[in-house]
Amino acid sequence: MNLHDIQQLDLADPLRSLRSQFTIPPEVIYLDGNSLGAMPTAVSATLKDVVEQEWGVGLIRSWNTADWMRLPNRVGNKIARLIGAKDNEVMAVDSTSVNLYKALNVAATLQKGSGKTVLLTERDNFPTDIYIAEQIAQQFGLRVEMVEGDIAAAITGDTAILLLTQVNYRTGTLHDMTALTATAHAQGALTVWDLAHSAGALPVDVHAANADFVLGCGYKYLNGGPGAPSFIWVNPRLVNTCAQPLVGWLGHTAPFAFTTDYVPAQGIQRYMAGSPTIFSLAALQCGVDTLLAAEPLGGMQAIRRKSLALTNLFMRLIDEAKLPLTCITPRDESIRGSQVSYTHPTHAYAMVQALIARGVIGDFRAPDILRFGFTPAYTSYHDVWQSVQHLIAVIEKEEYLNPAFMTKNAIT
Amino acid sequence: MNLHDIQQLDLADPLRSLRSQFTIPPEVIYLDGNSLGAMPTAVSATLKDVVEQEWGVGLIRSWNTADWMRLPNRVGNKIARLIGAKDNEVMAVDSTSVNLYKALNVAATLQKGSGKTVLLTERDNFPTDIYIAEQIAQQFGLRVEMVEGDIAAAITGDTAILLLTQVNYRTGTLHDMTALTATAHAQGALTVWDLAHSAGALPVDVHAANADFVLGCGYKYLNGGPGAPSFIWVNPRLVNTCAQPLVGWLGHTAPFAFTTDYVPAQGIQRYMAGSPTIFSLAALQCGVDTLLAAEPLGGMQAIRRKSLALTNLFMRLIDEAKLPLTCITPRDESIRGSQVSYTHPTHAYAMVQALIARGVIGDFRAPDILRFGFTPAYTSYHDVWQSVQHLIAVIEKEEYLNPAFMTKNAIT
Repeated sequence: MNLHDIQQLDLADPLRSLRSQFTIPPEVIYLDGNSLGAMPTAVSATLKDVVEQEWGVGLIRSWNTADWMRLPNRVGNKIARLIGAKDNEVMAVDSTSVNLYKALNVAATLQKGSGKTVLLTERDNFPTDIYIAEQIAQQFGLRVEMVEGDIAAAITGDTAILLLTQVNYRTGTLHDMTALTATAHAQGALTVWDLAHSAGALPVDVHAANADFVLGCGYKYLNGGPGAPSFIWVNPRLVNTCAQPLVGWLGHTAPFAFTTDYVPAQGIQRYMAGSPTIFSLAALQCGVDTLLAAEPLGGMQAIRRKSLALTNLFMRLIDEAKLPLTCITPRDESIRGSQVSYTHPTHAYAMVQALIARGVIGDFRAPDILRFGFTPAYTSYHDVWQSVQHLIAVIEKEEYLNPAFMTKNAIT
Repeated sequence: MNLHDIQQLDLADPLRSLRSQFTIPPEVIYLDGNSLGAMPTAVSATLKDVVEQEWGVGLIRSWNTADWMRLPNRVGNKIARLIGAKDNEVMAVDSTSVNLYKALNVAATLQKGSGKTVLLTERDNFPTDIYIAEQIAQQFGLRVEMVEGDIAAAITGDTAILLLTQVNYRTGTLHDMTALTATAHAQGALTVWDLAHSAGALPVDVHAANADFVLGCGYKYLNGGPGAPSFIWVNPRLVNTCAQPLVGWLGHTAPFAFTTDYVPAQGIQRYMAGSPTIFSLAALQCGVDTLLAAEPLGGMQAIRRKSLALTNLFMRLIDEAKLPLTCITPRDESIRGSQVSYTHPTHAYAMVQALIARGVIGDFRAPDILRFGFTPAYTSYHDVWQSVQHLIAVIEKEEYLNPAFMTKNAIT
C-alpha cells in the first residue's frame, strides 16, 4: 500500500465532506477525539450569539424566548438519533459521573428486596464507573464483583446490576450490548451501559438491545467541547417507576409551582436536577450536529464503515513496519471500537510525547498504553498514513529517549 | 425626593464605575439579577478565546497548557474572596442541587450514630433545598421538620442538620448565619447554608460564622450566565472527615493513576466529580471578576451599603406613591437581602408582565409575589426612580388588565 492508494481511499470516501465542519490546526493530526473531540467551527458563532443576544439582550426572558428551558431536551433529542432512542427519551444534563450515580441508584432501588447481592462490572472499566459502583453498592448493601475475562459467564442469579462501558477505554474492546443485556435479563439483572466511547463512534440501538439505563459523554465522539454535559436515557418501561435521587427542581413535574412536595416529572425529564449549563450545552449541540450531518451520507453505519477502515489501515501499516509495540485492541473488527491501543513496556509515555511534538496527537494511558482514537468525520486515510510514518520515525530515530518527553503532565 | 436628588446620589456613588463592566440593553432596567445576573461584556471575548484558541488550537493539550484542570479551583479561589473563605477552600463545580446533595449527604453521614433525628429547614425555603432534604432524610432515617417563624427556637438536641438559605428567595429575609450556626452547634447540629441569594449580594464570612457546609449559585449575583456552575465550601475542620457520595474520578487524589480504589483527594478537591464544564466556568469567572473589581472601591461592604440604599429608596418611593401592594420584605435593613418583594392578591403576575413590556424586568413568584432584585454593580439610583415611575403607571393606568399580560410562561 503506497501513498497513491491512500489518496484514492480519501477520494472515494463518502464522508470526506464532513471534515469541513471542523477547524483543526493544519500542523496537527488529531487522534485523540476519544478523549476530547475536535472543534466544530460553528461553536464560536453559536456561543457569540447565545452570549451576546440570548443572554446580553434577552436576559432572564431567554429561558422562554430562546427556550433555554428545553435545551437539554433538544440536545437530548439529537443524541437520541445517534443511539436508537426516540424523541423525549434522552436528556443532556450533568456529568457522566452524576448520571451514572442516578442510574445506578435507581437500578439498585428497583432491585431492593430481590435478594440479589452483586453489582457486576469489568475490572478495567473506567475508574469513575467502578468508584460510583462501589458507592452505590455500599449504600444498598450490594457487593461489587469485577470480572476479568468472560462477562456473560459471570452473570448469575445473584447479579442485581450489570454495569459496563460498551467500549473499553484502554483496549477499545466492544461489548455486545444486545447479547449481554439478554443474558442479564434472563437472570433478572438490570443493565447500566456507559456509552462514553461508543456514542457517536459506532451505531448503537438502545431499543434493539433492550437496555435498561444508558448514559454517555458529550466531549468525546460527540465533539461537545471540554467538560460538555453528559446524556442519559432510561428504558420507557422503567423510567416512571421511581425517582432518581438528585431531586432538583427542574426534575419536578411543575417546577414553577414552587410546592414543597417533590412530584417527579413523567419520563426522562425527571432525570434533570439543577439548571442546565447553557453555554456548554449550546456547544454540545454544535458537536452533535456534526454527526447528524452524516445522516444523508449513510449515518452511523457509514461512520462505522469508515471507522473500521481507518483502524484496519492503521494496524496494517504498523504491522508492516514491524514496530516493537504490542497491539491490545481486537483484530476482530466486530468487537473493536473506534480506537487502537498499543503497549510498550518502558517508553509508552515518551513515545506519545514525541509524537505530539511531531503534531500527531494521541494519548497515553497508565501504565504502558499508547492510545489512538479515530473520528471518521475529521480523520482522513492520509492522516492515518502520515501518523504511522511519524510513529516509525519516533521509534527508529529513538526520539522518545529525549528527556523532555519524559516529564508527566496531568492529562496526556 | 425629586429627580435632582436622585442624580446627586448617582454622582456620589463610589461604585458607579462598575456599571461599565456590563452590557445591558439601553431600553431595559434590569431588576432580576437575583434570578439571572446581567452579562459582563468580557464574557464574549473570553469564550471566543477559550473556544478558538484553547479548544480549537490547543485541543486536548489545553487541560495542561491552559490549565483547564484547575479552572474549578481558580474560579473557586475568586469566589472565596467574596464569602470569607481562604485559597483552596472553594470549588466551582456542578449545580447547586448537586452540591446540596453532596453537603447534606456528608452532614448526615457525620451525624450517624448521634441519635439525632431531625433535618431542620424553613417551610418556604427554595423547593430544591426541601426536595433534597427530604431525599437525604429518607436515605438516612431522619425526619424533615419545616419551621415557620422562629428558627432558633426550633433548634433542639434532636436537630442533626440545620439547612437554610441565608436570604429567602421570596421575601428577601436575611438570616443571621453566625448566630444560628452557634445555636445549632450548641445543640450538636451541623449547618448547611445555601448562599444562592447572598453570595455576591452582601458580605458573607464563612469562617467568622464557623459554618459547616456552604454552597451557592453562580448565575445570580455572581453574574456567571445561564446555568453557571455552583460553588461549594466545607469547613476545613470537616472537609477531610469523609468522602462525598458522587465519587467521580476528578475527586480522586490521583485521577490519572486510574486505580480501582477510590482515595479521596485532600481538601475541597474531593468535592469534584466529573469533568468541569469549561465554557460555563470561563463565563462564571468573568462574572466573579465584576465583583472583585469592587475590592479597591470598598469591596462587599461598599456593595452592601449601596444595596441597602437602593432597596431603601425603592421601598420609600413606593410608600410615597401609596400603591395597592403589600411589602413582604423586612423594613429592618439588618435582616434584608438585596431584593424587595410585594404581594398583590390578584394581579401580581400581570403587573410584572406589564412592567417587562415597559422595559423594567423584575419577576413573579407564585402565588402572588412581585420580586425586584438589586445588583449594586449595575443598578443606579436613577434606575430605581424610573422603575417606580413605571410601576406607578402600570397600576394607575391599569395596564395589568391587558389580557396579553396574563398568559404564563415557564420562567417569568
